[in-house]
Amino acid sequence: MVEFLGNHYKPIAYSCLRTGTELSLDLRLQRLYQGLQEIIAKYKPDFMAVEELFFNKNARTALAVGHARGIALLAGANAGVPVAEYTPLQVKQAVTGYGKADKQQVQFMVKTLLSLNEIPKPDDVADALAIAICHAHWSSAPGGLTR
Amino acid sequence: MVEFLGNHYKPIAYSCLRTGTELSLDLRLQRLYQGLQEIIAKYKPDFMAVEELFFNKNARTALAVGHARGIALLAGANAGVPVAEYTPLQVKQAVTGYGKADKQQVQFMVKTLLSLNEIPKPDDVADALAIAICHAHWSSAPGGLTR
Repeated sequence: MVEFLGNHYKPIAYSCLRTGTELSLDLRLQRLYQGLQEIIAKYKPDFMAVEELFFNKNARTALAVGHARGIALLAGANAGVPVAEYTPLQVKQAVTGYGKADKQQVQFMVKTLLSLNEIPKPDDVADALAIAICHAHWSSAPGGLTR
Repeated sequence: MVEFLGNHYKPIAYSCLRTGTELSLDLRLQRLYQGLQEIIAKYKPDFMAVEELFFNKNARTALAVGHARGIALLAGANAGVPVAEYTPLQVKQAVTGYGKADKQQVQFMVKTLLSLNEIPKPDDVADALAIAICHAHWSSAPGGLTR
């Protein structure tokens, strides 16, 4: 969760939702949905942003990611929060100015733009913040998108 | 939706949920979720069954299927309906007695077991009925599962 105030970014909250591996898949997805509902209800975001993913291989991973990603999109839609999707290229460009930036550069810029003392862990949290920064960046650009 | 009465199967309802391609992905998934909620509320199933999928290639398809599949699992969990997962092998064995049966054999047996006048179309509907038959088959077997 990032607030964009005119010309700078303010981190509001960020974390990683985890579900117990002892639960069946349907119940894990239910926990994820409930967790997202709680976050949306608490912080009332104006927008959600998720990464558009392209997998070159490993369809098993793609299916698993698809399960969770579908839940995130539904949580946004059911709360009336518009959901934007960005490619990794768009995220890197928005955060570092360079579409081929590596993970370390993106993480460094997330830390810098949000004035954090350290890079958020795990990597997924830093990635999520980068996507939020990306949305604020593109949507505040001239002719910027809202949905 | 299939009812299993002692030793035979009765088709209750079956159809294919479609969402408009003009909608954004989050809203399409929302329509799917709403459609499943309505079906669950109307027919109050005791169980849901979905196919366990393995993709050897085409991760893009796997991601798209994952989105919809995650929504189906969540709809079950949020309605308190246990969701079982079956591999294509289990479905084929349950419906035709033969794990390497082809699509035509499965469709023929769905039509026969449910005393339908014709094979349901599109193929996805026949597949869904086969999965429902599969669940009834395995859960009624000695030592059969319920969840």
